[in-house]
Amino acid sequence: MYTNGDIVVGEVIGTALLILFGSGVCAAVTLHHSKARGAGWVVIAFGWGLGVLAGAYTAAPLSGGHLNPAVTLGSAVAGGTPWAKVPLYVLAQLVGAVLGAVLAWALYFAQFAANAEPGRAQPTLGVFATAPEIRRPGANLVTEVIATVGLVLPLLFFGRNQGIGIGQVPGARAGVYGSGINVLLVALLVVGIGLSLGGPTGYAINPARDLGPRIAHALLPIPNKGSSDWGYAWIPVAGPLLGAVLSGLVYTAVF
Amino acid sequence: MYTNGDIVVGEVIGTALLILFGSGVCAAVTLHHSKARGAGWVVIAFGWGLGVLAGAYTAAPLSGGHLNPAVTLGSAVAGGTPWAKVPLYVLAQLVGAVLGAVLAWALYFAQFAANAEPGRAQPTLGVFATAPEIRRPGANLVTEVIATVGLVLPLLFFGRNQGIGIGQVPGARAGVYGSGINVLLVALLVVGIGLSLGGPTGYAINPARDLGPRIAHALLPIPNKGSSDWGYAWIPVAGPLLGAVLSGLVYTAVF
Amino acid sequence: MYTNGDIVVGEVIGTALLILFGSGVCAAVTLHHSKARGAGWVVIAFGWGLGVLAGAYTAAPLSGGHLNPAVTLGSAVAGGTPWAKVPLYVLAQLVGAVLGAVLAWALYFAQFAANAEPGRAQPTLGVFATAPEIRRPGANLVTEVIATVGLVLPLLFFGRNQGIGIGQVPGARAGVYGSGINVLLVALLVVGIGLSLGGPTGYAINPARDLGPRIAHALLPIPNKGSSDWGYAWIPVAGPLLGAVLSGLVYTAVF
Amino acid sequence: MYTNGDIVVGEVIGTALLILFGSGVCAAVTLHHSKARGAGWVVIAFGWGLGVLAGAYTAAPLSGGHLNPAVTLGSAVAGGTPWAKVPLYVLAQLVGAVLGAVLAWALYFAQFAANAEPGRAQPTLGVFATAPEIRRPGANLVTEVIATVGLVLPLLFFGRNQGIGIGQVPGARAGVYGSGINVLLVALLVVGIGLSLGGPTGYAINPARDLGPRIAHALLPIPNKGSSDWGYAWIPVAGPLLGAVLSGLVYTAVF
Repeated sequence: MYTNGDIVVGEVIGTALLILFGSGVCAAVTLHHSKARGAGWVVIAFGWGLGVLAGAYTAAPLSGGHLNPAVTLGSAVAGGTPWAKVPLYVLAQLVGAVLGAVLAWALYFAQFAANAEPGRAQPTLGVFATAPEIRRPGANLVTEVIATVGLVLPLLFFGRNQGIGIGQVPGARAGVYGSGINVLLVALLVVGIGLSLGGPTGYAINPARDLGPRIAHALLPIPNKGSSDWGYAWIPVAGPLLGAVLSGLVYTAVF
Repeated sequence: MYTNGDIVVGEVIGTALLILFGSGVCAAVTLHHSKARGAGWVVIAFGWGLGVLAGAYTAAPLSGGHLNPAVTLGSAVAGGTPWAKVPLYVLAQLVGAVLGAVLAWALYFAQFAANAEPGRAQPTLGVFATAPEIRRPGANLVTEVIATVGLVLPLLFFGRNQGIGIGQVPGARAGVYGSGINVLLVALLVVGIGLSLGGPTGYAINPARDLGPRIAHALLPIPNKGSSDWGYAWIPVAGPLLGAVLSGLVYTAVF
Repeated sequence: MYTNGDIVVGEVIGTALLILFGSGVCAAVTLHHSKARGAGWVVIAFGWGLGVLAGAYTAAPLSGGHLNPAVTLGSAVAGGTPWAKVPLYVLAQLVGAVLGAVLAWALYFAQFAANAEPGRAQPTLGVFATAPEIRRPGANLVTEVIATVGLVLPLLFFGRNQGIGIGQVPGARAGVYGSGINVLLVALLVVGIGLSLGGPTGYAINPARDLGPRIAHALLPIPNKGSSDWGYAWIPVAGPLLGAVLSGLVYTAVF
Repeated sequence: MYTNGDIVVGEVIGTALLILFGSGVCAAVTLHHSKARGAGWVVIAFGWGLGVLAGAYTAAPLSGGHLNPAVTLGSAVAGGTPWAKVPLYVLAQLVGAVLGAVLAWALYFAQFAANAEPGRAQPTLGVFATAPEIRRPGANLVTEVIATVGLVLPLLFFGRNQGIGIGQVPGARAGVYGSGINVLLVALLVVGIGLSLGGPTGYAINPARDLGPRIAHALLPIPNKGSSDWGYAWIPVAGPLLGAVLSGLVYTAVF
């Protein structure tokens, strides 16, 4: 079992890395004066997926590397993570996500400053949080539920492949991916989710990934930053949590 | 040996995931109001390949993760999967494929609904099923036969590499890839097939992948959805099955 | 040690798969009526690299999966492959390369046939063989020498990593990569060579890869197929062989 | 422990390969008469990442495959690499980086020569060294510090995953990644850094990677080559070293 201290350190650092890479790639592709501006969807999807690789392998020996309240919740429903640890995981993930967004902002500081240039100003929320292409709450919620099932269900089932473990962290249980090749597989899975399932809403599939950077966006002094769109904020929280519960129930029904 | 129950559960869930990602990426790249619209062929190929990763690692501990009647047939010819299990595999794969297509439709519900917008209507079969660029049945069939050999032949031979196993599922036999790195290799192989061999017909290489979503297309209430093109439907069934038999025979001749 | 029969079967099938994918991706990106037309350099590089994955893992248990006279030669210089086996390897690779090019032509038959359409005719050699952007024999030769060092030197050194083996084929020796993760690494290496070193000449880095398909181009009945450019053909043979010898000598000097 | 001789040979060859691929991909995408011209940011990021794969797996059995003074420094701070070995590592890395840049120049010789063509002349420093999109030393330094933390912190933590080792080189210690799957993970991490964190400054994250090729640029006889921009050269040295120390301190604090 992971200690409370290790969980906090692992999830804060790991989620910060995830969001540094994730918000980073959104900045890279959308901000003026970025070398990757306009580089397209394949860059977005690989940037987020490799952020999972960076963060989850870093956190793996400390906390198992969840980095996502939906992963923690799904794992708890499936009998992996103890329910008593869930709030600690989620809090650490949210703190890490805010921290990561601040780091991404610092790394792209000059680019954000250039948003004050006349004729260059553009909304900057897209670097931090998700937004739907078509605003339709019911459909958006369904999108996030299914996309999260596309993450959490395979992730839980992957844990059954004794063969892939190559070093399951000792003490790891169902639904908590260890430090073997599993994390690489989940990173690639997240690339795939981005490519395939991200079209309608920008695939939050992680409440901390959306809420943390949205808070950072609201607080950071970015010129012409535009709205933080709090009206939409509940969907990338509720959808992934629903998808996680659903995935955990399927897992429990099958095994 | 896998139990009948496990085969059904594994193949239904695994194939549903494959098609969720696969039809998903086709929707992502082609539908209006998708963030990935126009993102191109590399996105298509990686989306399908990572769908294989998602589905086959999920199904691996239950059924071996075939997700494709051509894989099941090739494995049977090569002496892996028992012939008596073949119909169960195929039926489960077809059910899973229909289910996956329905999930992809639900995830992209608002985008499909937008196909009712004046001036935006476009045929939607391409999200579900394959179609040739040049309609010429003989050539199209040959394309699907060779492309399927490009999948099933390596897949069968990969099983001979004791070294890659990293945990062949106990009970696995020739032609049934286990839960080791083999599934990752097959996922990358499918990326390669998409990039290299998908140009003429859109690479079905899997009868369930084409027929299941085509049935879903025929049934789903999509505005202006256009024809389900049943005249072409036999080629992405017959071609892959022929390629699978050919691959199994080569495998048997060599080993 | 691999038997003569296994070497022939492994290298013929493996090289045929490599060229099927490699010529396939060139056809996919350049021919009219291909869904991947214009998909760009990243598709080319991944298509060839994943062709290595397909072919080399298929051939690995039979012949070690060289698929390239430069690999065989470098391995022989480094003390791996016995010199007496070299001619057999090379011959089988050349036969496999011709076979693979014919398969790619058959798969893209309708697209090649469309090269007879008025206003669509274009030279087709690029699907089969390499050509320099700037024709300057000395510089082109240097390009192929260095690019091949970029392949064969790492490949030989990779064999020293006991850790990566994950199941070196029994009997494998220095310079012959086994069936472990090494093949995956070499496949990714070939992706990298394409991206980084392919700009000037199209990276033959393999005499069989260039000569075999060039022979196929000369023989196949393709409308308006254009010249087979035999004047350039010696460079993608000589350059890779020089690079291979150089790599083998460095390896021998270091270990 | 690695011998001094092995460290020199490993780091020179490994870093030369890294820069051959890295400067190579910059040449591929930016020079006239290159087949990959204009192929975009995804090609740059994968080219550099796969250069890490090529160089680090080659050097791994000899020196651990650092290829980067920031990695060596971070590892020393974390208690891995002995401080007495650090100067040798750094010197060998710098020599290797110059050598690699010369090899990339030789490989693209005809393309560089074409920079003498009227109307085609363009600055060539971008093939060799980094430059910021917005020249603002404080912000540029912060960018390089954080981006290097994005490399060195995960790299150090990855070493704690006993599970990923798959053959940690005997004698390897904290912060020195062995020859297992770790190198592959770091290569993918570098792809991710390129995609996500490279937008503002072109991600040196490695003093040798920037300084070595910049020296080569200053010395090589390239027509119309433009300035070597020495005024900026301190930032891609100081930033990565600061980021490395920071990462080592975090590692030490956590474990």
